[in-house]
Amino acid sequence: MYDLIVIGAGPAGITAAIYAARKKIDVAVITKDIGGQAALSGDIENYTGYQFITGPELAAKFEEHLNKFAIQLKENEEVIEVQKKEAIVWVKSNKDIYEAKTVIIASGKRSRELGVPGEKEFKNRGLTYCATCDAPLFSGKDVAVIGGGNSALDAALQLMKIAKHTYIINITSSLTGDPIMREKVESSKSVTVLNNTQVTEVFGDNLIKGIKIKKAGKQEELKVEGVFVEIGLIPNTAFVQELDKNELGEIKVNARNETNIPGIFAAGDVTDVAEKQIIIAAGEGSKAALSAFRYLSKVR
Amino acid sequence: MYDLIVIGAGPAGITAAIYAARKKIDVAVITKDIGGQAALSGDIENYTGYQFITGPELAAKFEEHLNKFAIQLKENEEVIEVQKKEAIVWVKSNKDIYEAKTVIIASGKRSRELGVPGEKEFKNRGLTYCATCDAPLFSGKDVAVIGGGNSALDAALQLMKIAKHTYIINITSSLTGDPIMREKVESSKSVTVLNNTQVTEVFGDNLIKGIKIKKAGKQEELKVEGVFVEIGLIPNTAFVQELDKNELGEIKVNARNETNIPGIFAAGDVTDVAEKQIIIAAGEGSKAALSAFRYLSKVR
Repeated sequence: MYDLIVIGAGPAGITAAIYAARKKIDVAVITKDIGGQAALSGDIENYTGYQFITGPELAAKFEEHLNKFAIQLKENEEVIEVQKKEAIVWVKSNKDIYEAKTVIIASGKRSRELGVPGEKEFKNRGLTYCATCDAPLFSGKDVAVIGGGNSALDAALQLMKIAKHTYIINITSSLTGDPIMREKVESSKSVTVLNNTQVTEVFGDNLIKGIKIKKAGKQEELKVEGVFVEIGLIPNTAFVQELDKNELGEIKVNARNETNIPGIFAAGDVTDVAEKQIIIAAGEGSKAALSAFRYLSKVR
Repeated sequence: MYDLIVIGAGPAGITAAIYAARKKIDVAVITKDIGGQAALSGDIENYTGYQFITGPELAAKFEEHLNKFAIQLKENEEVIEVQKKEAIVWVKSNKDIYEAKTVIIASGKRSRELGVPGEKEFKNRGLTYCATCDAPLFSGKDVAVIGGGNSALDAALQLMKIAKHTYIINITSSLTGDPIMREKVESSKSVTVLNNTQVTEVFGDNLIKGIKIKKAGKQEELKVEGVFVEIGLIPNTAFVQELDKNELGEIKVNARNETNIPGIFAAGDVTDVAEKQIIIAAGEGSKAALSAFRYLSKVR
């Protein structure tokens, strides 16, 4: 029986675990990976204290910080069910079943899929959801980024240094996202932005040869060898049914990161916190751990 | 006319300014100092990404990060009044009057005073509210820390490496604060914890000679040359009357860091955010800046 199980090891989960360990709470972290979405980011310039750091570098700093404490880290493990029965929270993973007095859900988000023909077929054969991971594979090639927000801009910024030419396929009338990123992308000669444009198919043989796009009702083909899908994120909450969620599927939390079930807390991008940012998720993780600590001091 | 004026340059204010600058908002920061309470901290082990850093070191990292951007920094300047008239927020300082479309109040907290005879008289002549600033002056001397929470423990941890002997004068029946800090303090031979004990006077001639304490109705004198007052913090909100505050005098904010006055946002320790931590204040600053950005995109 753990005092606390933290699900996820992104900025929120890691910070929660660090705070819990410093409070001498007996804590385990169950996670598929370390660093979460932060580890997949390109250049990070807004994590206060680090003027410039890459996503993988910041994730490595987080991991070192986590490892400093006596925290039971269960990596490469996926939670498939969380249920509270009487005073105990049962956490079932693909490897084991655990009991805990409290749980912090910090499982973050995953990439939304396009839902067009060819997407599943060419996944990892030219189509990817992670520019940071895969951009280096497309050196000197023509590529397409699907999306128009910060994630798409981040992908384009990484690709424009590597790829021959980068097309941004944006379904809305103009790019959104940080002006500073937009300017960099829009002023690059190796980037073409196609607004009001929809992707309808990904095609090729063994590898991708191109995408079909639709603009003002007109179908076209665009020859690219890489497709980077950056059209948003979905909260990872499939393992917990009983929690109140908002219309986006995000877990509702109050100012103390409490959910509607006492003893179950949530933090970071998986919640309805107003903004999704690394520094915000970290702060939320800290708050959730302190709330769990208060809860534990009452029940144990 | 600024798009945004940030009041204060602690973790919340600096993060807000960084986020605003990255959004290409025309931003000024008015502040008495850089780093806020963080700069006065001793050892920091829970700012995710930095396993170990001192308060002044982290404040220096924050300042470098701030200086990377085109932000109008008005240091050594104190805001004395904030008022919204029609669509404009007027910010009056001890040096000038400014106009802004939005304001983020991130003015933090200051130390609570003891309110006993001798306190004012011996301030900076042995009595201090900042262990990080002044502990080194008491090398080899007997000192008293007044308080029993995390701030008092932090002060004692700093002093036990420097002072001859450190007394912790705690009005409650046991120390609160992080167990990890409590253990370090309680296991040190150079620290004596006096619980259920009240300070009633600070005395001396030119410098402090001791304090009068009361325990179980009995008066005693304790010979010390230094007194570190760590009995809590008061929000810095004297310059703004019209905002809703809670019973602690903290500015009430919603999940988007909005106050009850449109265009005026608040972040960090000056607000009713559930916990006061550096990483939380930084996250709150980010949220406040993003809310100000949304507000500006509607009004300008």
